[in-house]
Amino acid sequence: MVKGIAFYKEGEHVHEYLLIKSVTKGLASNGKPFLTIYLQDKTGDIESKLWGCTTDDEANYVPGAVVLAEGDITTFRGRNQFKIRTIRPATERDAVNKADLVMAAPLSVDELNEKITRYLFEIKNPVIQRITRALLKKNHRAFFEYPAAVSIHHNFLSGLAYHVCCMLDMAKSVVDLYPEIDKDLLYAGIIIHDMGKLEELSGVTATSYTLSGNLIGHISIMVTNIGKIAEELGIADKEEVLLLKHMVLSHHENPEWGSPKPPMFKEAEILHILDDMDAKINVMTRAIRKTRPGEFSERIFAMNNRTLYRPSFDEHQSEEGPESFT
Amino acid sequence: MVKGIAFYKEGEHVHEYLLIKSVTKGLASNGKPFLTIYLQDKTGDIESKLWGCTTDDEANYVPGAVVLAEGDITTFRGRNQFKIRTIRPATERDAVNKADLVMAAPLSVDELNEKITRYLFEIKNPVIQRITRALLKKNHRAFFEYPAAVSIHHNFLSGLAYHVCCMLDMAKSVVDLYPEIDKDLLYAGIIIHDMGKLEELSGVTATSYTLSGNLIGHISIMVTNIGKIAEELGIADKEEVLLLKHMVLSHHENPEWGSPKPPMFKEAEILHILDDMDAKINVMTRAIRKTRPGEFSERIFAMNNRTLYRPSFDEHQSEEGPESFT
Amino acid sequence: MVKGIAFYKEGEHVHEYLLIKSVTKGLASNGKPFLTIYLQDKTGDIESKLWGCTTDDEANYVPGAVVLAEGDITTFRGRNQFKIRTIRPATERDAVNKADLVMAAPLSVDELNEKITRYLFEIKNPVIQRITRALLKKNHRAFFEYPAAVSIHHNFLSGLAYHVCCMLDMAKSVVDLYPEIDKDLLYAGIIIHDMGKLEELSGVTATSYTLSGNLIGHISIMVTNIGKIAEELGIADKEEVLLLKHMVLSHHENPEWGSPKPPMFKEAEILHILDDMDAKINVMTRAIRKTRPGEFSERIFAMNNRTLYRPSFDEHQSEEGPESFT
Amino acid sequence: MVKGIAFYKEGEHVHEYLLIKSVTKGLASNGKPFLTIYLQDKTGDIESKLWGCTTDDEANYVPGAVVLAEGDITTFRGRNQFKIRTIRPATERDAVNKADLVMAAPLSVDELNEKITRYLFEIKNPVIQRITRALLKKNHRAFFEYPAAVSIHHNFLSGLAYHVCCMLDMAKSVVDLYPEIDKDLLYAGIIIHDMGKLEELSGVTATSYTLSGNLIGHISIMVTNIGKIAEELGIADKEEVLLLKHMVLSHHENPEWGSPKPPMFKEAEILHILDDMDAKINVMTRAIRKTRPGEFSERIFAMNNRTLYRPSFDEHQSEEGPESFT
Amino acid sequence: MVKGIAFYKEGEHVHEYLLIKSVTKGLASNGKPFLTIYLQDKTGDIESKLWGCTTDDEANYVPGAVVLAEGDITTFRGRNQFKIRTIRPATERDAVNKADLVMAAPLSVDELNEKITRYLFEIKNPVIQRITRALLKKNHRAFFEYPAAVSIHHNFLSGLAYHVCCMLDMAKSVVDLYPEIDKDLLYAGIIIHDMGKLEELSGVTATSYTLSGNLIGHISIMVTNIGKIAEELGIADKEEVLLLKHMVLSHHENPEWGSPKPPMFKEAEILHILDDMDAKINVMTRAIRKTRPGEFSERIFAMNNRTLYRPSFDEHQSEEGPESFT
Amino acid sequence: MVKGIAFYKEGEHVHEYLLIKSVTKGLASNGKPFLTIYLQDKTGDIESKLWGCTTDDEANYVPGAVVLAEGDITTFRGRNQFKIRTIRPATERDAVNKADLVMAAPLSVDELNEKITRYLFEIKNPVIQRITRALLKKNHRAFFEYPAAVSIHHNFLSGLAYHVCCMLDMAKSVVDLYPEIDKDLLYAGIIIHDMGKLEELSGVTATSYTLSGNLIGHISIMVTNIGKIAEELGIADKEEVLLLKHMVLSHHENPEWGSPKPPMFKEAEILHILDDMDAKINVMTRAIRKTRPGEFSERIFAMNNRTLYRPSFDEHQSEEGPESFT
Repeated sequence: MVKGIAFYKEGEHVHEYLLIKSVTKGLASNGKPFLTIYLQDKTGDIESKLWGCTTDDEANYVPGAVVLAEGDITTFRGRNQFKIRTIRPATERDAVNKADLVMAAPLSVDELNEKITRYLFEIKNPVIQRITRALLKKNHRAFFEYPAAVSIHHNFLSGLAYHVCCMLDMAKSVVDLYPEIDKDLLYAGIIIHDMGKLEELSGVTATSYTLSGNLIGHISIMVTNIGKIAEELGIADKEEVLLLKHMVLSHHENPEWGSPKPPMFKEAEILHILDDMDAKINVMTRAIRKTRPGEFSERIFAMNNRTLYRPSFDEHQSEEGPESFT
Repeated sequence: MVKGIAFYKEGEHVHEYLLIKSVTKGLASNGKPFLTIYLQDKTGDIESKLWGCTTDDEANYVPGAVVLAEGDITTFRGRNQFKIRTIRPATERDAVNKADLVMAAPLSVDELNEKITRYLFEIKNPVIQRITRALLKKNHRAFFEYPAAVSIHHNFLSGLAYHVCCMLDMAKSVVDLYPEIDKDLLYAGIIIHDMGKLEELSGVTATSYTLSGNLIGHISIMVTNIGKIAEELGIADKEEVLLLKHMVLSHHENPEWGSPKPPMFKEAEILHILDDMDAKINVMTRAIRKTRPGEFSERIFAMNNRTLYRPSFDEHQSEEGPESFT
Repeated sequence: MVKGIAFYKEGEHVHEYLLIKSVTKGLASNGKPFLTIYLQDKTGDIESKLWGCTTDDEANYVPGAVVLAEGDITTFRGRNQFKIRTIRPATERDAVNKADLVMAAPLSVDELNEKITRYLFEIKNPVIQRITRALLKKNHRAFFEYPAAVSIHHNFLSGLAYHVCCMLDMAKSVVDLYPEIDKDLLYAGIIIHDMGKLEELSGVTATSYTLSGNLIGHISIMVTNIGKIAEELGIADKEEVLLLKHMVLSHHENPEWGSPKPPMFKEAEILHILDDMDAKINVMTRAIRKTRPGEFSERIFAMNNRTLYRPSFDEHQSEEGPESFT
Repeated sequence: MVKGIAFYKEGEHVHEYLLIKSVTKGLASNGKPFLTIYLQDKTGDIESKLWGCTTDDEANYVPGAVVLAEGDITTFRGRNQFKIRTIRPATERDAVNKADLVMAAPLSVDELNEKITRYLFEIKNPVIQRITRALLKKNHRAFFEYPAAVSIHHNFLSGLAYHVCCMLDMAKSVVDLYPEIDKDLLYAGIIIHDMGKLEELSGVTATSYTLSGNLIGHISIMVTNIGKIAEELGIADKEEVLLLKHMVLSHHENPEWGSPKPPMFKEAEILHILDDMDAKINVMTRAIRKTRPGEFSERIFAMNNRTLYRPSFDEHQSEEGPESFT
Repeated sequence: MVKGIAFYKEGEHVHEYLLIKSVTKGLASNGKPFLTIYLQDKTGDIESKLWGCTTDDEANYVPGAVVLAEGDITTFRGRNQFKIRTIRPATERDAVNKADLVMAAPLSVDELNEKITRYLFEIKNPVIQRITRALLKKNHRAFFEYPAAVSIHHNFLSGLAYHVCCMLDMAKSVVDLYPEIDKDLLYAGIIIHDMGKLEELSGVTATSYTLSGNLIGHISIMVTNIGKIAEELGIADKEEVLLLKHMVLSHHENPEWGSPKPPMFKEAEILHILDDMDAKINVMTRAIRKTRPGEFSERIFAMNNRTLYRPSFDEHQSEEGPESFT
Repeated sequence: MVKGIAFYKEGEHVHEYLLIKSVTKGLASNGKPFLTIYLQDKTGDIESKLWGCTTDDEANYVPGAVVLAEGDITTFRGRNQFKIRTIRPATERDAVNKADLVMAAPLSVDELNEKITRYLFEIKNPVIQRITRALLKKNHRAFFEYPAAVSIHHNFLSGLAYHVCCMLDMAKSVVDLYPEIDKDLLYAGIIIHDMGKLEELSGVTATSYTLSGNLIGHISIMVTNIGKIAEELGIADKEEVLLLKHMVLSHHENPEWGSPKPPMFKEAEILHILDDMDAKINVMTRAIRKTRPGEFSERIFAMNNRTLYRPSFDEHQSEEGPESFT
């Protein structure tokens, strides 16, 4: 059984089915064309170069194609590269399923849907409930399939909904422990806080930023969408609408991180903290899985470029089984 | 003729009709109540204390009342205070007009309206024109009467529209000089950039922040309103709508100043520069009017707490005539 | 029943038993001495002035004395003051218990001890367990009685241990949700992270900073103490000791907040987040309790000087019963 | 007709006369020498490599030489490079004029001179007029030929004087609109603000920093020069001299940008704003010309590394005709 | 023998001859005039109020007058005030010498002159020597009498020259220890680095900022003066002149502290370090003299608002004898 | 005689015995292995590549081996590289001594020891003396051989002790000049301030960070060690111990540079200044030695990435003789 492209070390040999994530054509200094191909399986992705490529190659190796590739792992500036020795497109006779090569949340779309619906039922305030329910309904399929980011945390199939689920579970502990927190605001804020990403990002796969994502951003997009849904429901003048808009507006906490206002009530602040905590745990856990016990990880951009230590007695074997993969 | 409450110096005697801007009640250390009253005329306002006030005083001296006050100018921590010797409410027999005591723009509502309408006609792009026209129509009266701020720049009657007019005049010079600037985007952006203040601020007089102003802010309010008007006009999917939203979103330039995105096209950047320049010129001009030639002004909060020098050969006599007052 | 000194509004009348927290003597501009007295009950404290004080007054009104005071609430620069009309020392005949006037955690010392011990038993790693147990034993009584700060969060009797308990409860949710987190490190880190405050702060009441607190600080004090206990237990060379030291060292995350190193493994980062979250929830909850629904709180220094909004539909009645008081 | 080296896209073929801007020799990893040559025409410049160069090549390809080059545009790290296929020095028989290959302002030296002289005549204050006139006279030729910078804004022939002209035109609109601005100070400040660059920069072409530019900088150089000219004119003790020095000293506004004092009177502040606006419009316009409608530009260092969007409906055809080139 | 106004503690009684440093007139809330008088002796100064002052008082108590005052030390916001009980002007019969009430350097003008001249002779490079000598000669008397600042470090008679002497002594140790440092540059740079303060500050006593000090600052003033003297000596084109200008320009190291360029050669950097060290030692030593062993000093603005600890075993008795006073 | 690897310029030929400092193996894009070798002599080190290396090469060229190498100096991104033409291991017949190829302090271990011991004897306070003596004794050999850093200042054999010696010499001048400085604290603080580096760094050669260095850092390591030694000497409760801990804790001055507390007494502040000054002089002097008169040095990371100018009249010939090398 293959160990997954994210877990190879320098010098190891690879022979695997992989999915092409993106391709760019370049011209080498000898004047010949080459392809820069990002190859992925469900554990991550890796850069490779196909030197001296033919027009056939350009036709075969396109985003979404599955290939069988063989070669070695090298490193360049501290990041792994895949030095291809042989590569060919997979055919019908190859026993490989494209869906098995896509990184995805550990819960299925149905499981995520059921879980979030359960939290939705716990919201008692009718204004808050109706808005949340209407927004979920309007974005239904995309909400459960989108990643939460292009390249930072939860950048995998259903990453957005999975991130929301983890935050809801933590939020439940918070409201149990601190009864003065308003559960309705907190649950609703969590469910909708990143929903603007459905317009900010281009789609479920080969995700990039849309023009609206670049110029307006998911936070302002979502503030507008809450206003719109509230108008449609005829409840635009309720204070709850203002509070939900504010929760979305302020959930990055800091102007430099994109929030023009800091959180200005308890539940908005806690939404920010839980969002930040779940994102960091996701990022840290994935970096540590690729690090040997007793060693330091790669520098992690989303953690202020820190490198993290994996204690020498940390024996988690999460690399093995796909079922435990986040 | 009186010289105006903003222009007295320490030690001078005052005897003037003044308008009460705000009143707060306090308890002195001897246990007796007193009133802190801000008195204004069209040149500015000043703090005063009414010690040992009676219940009659509390009934007479309320925001909006006109009084005849007499006393001396003192200073405390570098700011003028008005030491009241005598004060009485104005009656019908007093030859004073409340409207003459309100700080206002040098152009009337009609003049402002006519001027802005002329610029509106120069916008050729139909999407941009329709949105700008519809927003102006929807907010008609308030747009021409609101101040531009609670306490910083253009905080006077019609301050918002007057600020827009000055910016439009400067913008005309810019597009004449640099023909590659898109006039339509720039004019429209200027007209609507601060329109969210009509919801952010509580009203034309005794202005404070609304709940929506505090939690959402005029920038995000206006982005939502552009989206709404575009839906109503059936043109919500046009790129122009996105660009106008972005101009409003980015016109404070910097996250710490409230813009979650920096300007990302030429006209958005120029909108920011003209907004900043007009606000600063307004603030500086008013501070210098209160400063004698050859001296430094008070510290100016909106200019990074700088103090400005008035050259000893600066002979502008703007203090005298109300017609030249900005 | 009295409502508690923290909850009076300007203009209300007070007639209550109060405990003297601190006293300073001053000289008024008329040359007469006066006392600035901070009075407290279990809900908070308030500043008052005793003008024209006698030598008897100076002898009677000392920190720790209980008094019966009557007067009015005034405000100065946005903060409440207590204008004393009459005051007298409480005597044996007054039905008042000093312990009832002290702010305290909602759990008793025994309850806190039992709860933390239960978490201690869940730590399986023997090195981590032995160090944590030894440190708890060494500091036993003080650990369960100290406040967590002089004036910011959890600044009340048993505040430190109560803060630790809340964090442990949240930590349990985290390790249940994310199984790759090392429970042993996280629980131990939480229990010991602020233990250096037992040397940094002068004591349980009238708390101030010690010389060692000022010059070294609780973080460095505790790093040294972990080293010392590990030597005594003969396990100073274990990696776990280094990791626990690092958790304490880095738990303020940021150099400006006192941590010379940022968290460099998962559990250290999560310790920081939970510490920050619990402190903020404590600070926010207490500020909101003093705020009426539909209004903004005082500015909160520990929250970046923000003011928080209490939603108009927030009906929590926490002011009434002491049992729910945190 | 050729389209200009700045406007080619990746993959396009080039066959053009070009001017060599700079040359550096290097040693390839195969031990053979190569030349890195920057080639320019009036639209901009591009990097190229001449691999395996001979001693003849080194003699022929020197700064200032005109060549006929043919090859392809490639990209490296997001910037264009020119992959040379053939290159040869231009000879007398080639119909190419070196002056046509130099980037230059859209106005001639004579036009710039005439325009600035007209503004000079509008300065009424005799001290200000004499100093400005004397400084212009002393630096006459260089002032009208120098670029305004090595590599940021207005880095082309006569860029400095052209920048001054644009600022003067804007300044005229400002003084027309806001009559309290002192026209004399503003015009004079604009004319002399960057004159120190005549000592800071090494010359009109192949511009680099002089030792004095590196160690002292154009701002301090110019402050000294104003003092010197005032001494020569026997008016060194006039307040106007101090004010002009201050305008130069403060025109970068901010200590990090090189101004030890912020602007401390109105005209100094406006000088800074106009300088900044004209520089930014120049930088933005040139970046947008190289960008296709509906796309984002390269990152622009002088705009805080932002990338700018060109609206899809922006149809300016400035690339075609040299006459419209700024 | 009196202990000096700087060394009294709250509650102590004062009966001393004092010199009036500055006077401001105010109007009390009862409408009566009062004087705010700063009184000084050679150890420091203190604020006092003269309530209900007469016109005689106003005539008698002016800056520069010597008085005999008696009263008590009180504190307000952590700073001492002098509560005057009786005050009268000193007459010819009073055995008091005004010069004894002025804070001054521990070395006389002649001693400072002799010492600096000795260092001047050690400068071997003729260009550096001639410029330094000429600048010293031109500013002779003032250079040896001026303070080094209005209110921070070395703000006493001859403070500037004394600061230069201490720095020269330290510089000698540096060049002895590190022979590659250029002694000529370092000594000359130290002698002239703050000479611009002779124009920045208004005079030896009652020192304030001049207009030129406010608008240009001592750094830029001195850069211009070096240029001027070099012209007069006919050596303006020497590299040494540029280097001396740069040393002055960069000696505050950081743009926010007033240096538009950071030090760009060894001796310029060391000049900055020695300047900073001597200023800090002066500030710290004076703060500690006023602090009892085992206590913390007042907050020190010039040390980033830090408070400094005086070790409990620090027994220096510098308060007593004037001869040891810096 | 060879001039030393640090002093070659681009294009020069090298033929020298060199010591291998570190080796990494890589895979070239043609699939063949190569070695990246850092070669050093006593003047510095340089990067080189050995392309197409054999298994013999891998066995021969290991850290600590001496080689005879011949080739040319090239530059890459502004830094020198050594292009190897021929290389072979040195044998017994080669007249080369490994110790001559190691960068070292200009004083021998014995000289350093003697010098520091002399300063130790000047410490009169018995607590301070005993702690300093005990710490020196415990770390004896390592203290005199360790470098002071991995790659910044004093990164050579005995660099730590040499840095301490220079600081002590400067400190002597400071205490002579300013008698209120406590000599005992200052000398002791200097001797022990960086002693934690003996645990932070891995060893005398091929120095890297230890796990404890990464997670705790030399400052916190040393604070703990002072506590430990004080316990062993039975003087842990002395104020002097606290002060010494604080000096170590605060000697980087600033939280971002690793000090959780700023210096809080005079001697701690001066320790920081002397540490900073000696480090900067070391860094600057070494950069200038490699720079020709009249040119600018490479950018210096430890000096805020500044480039330093070497005056054209600076004739120091320090490159020649090893005896003058610091």
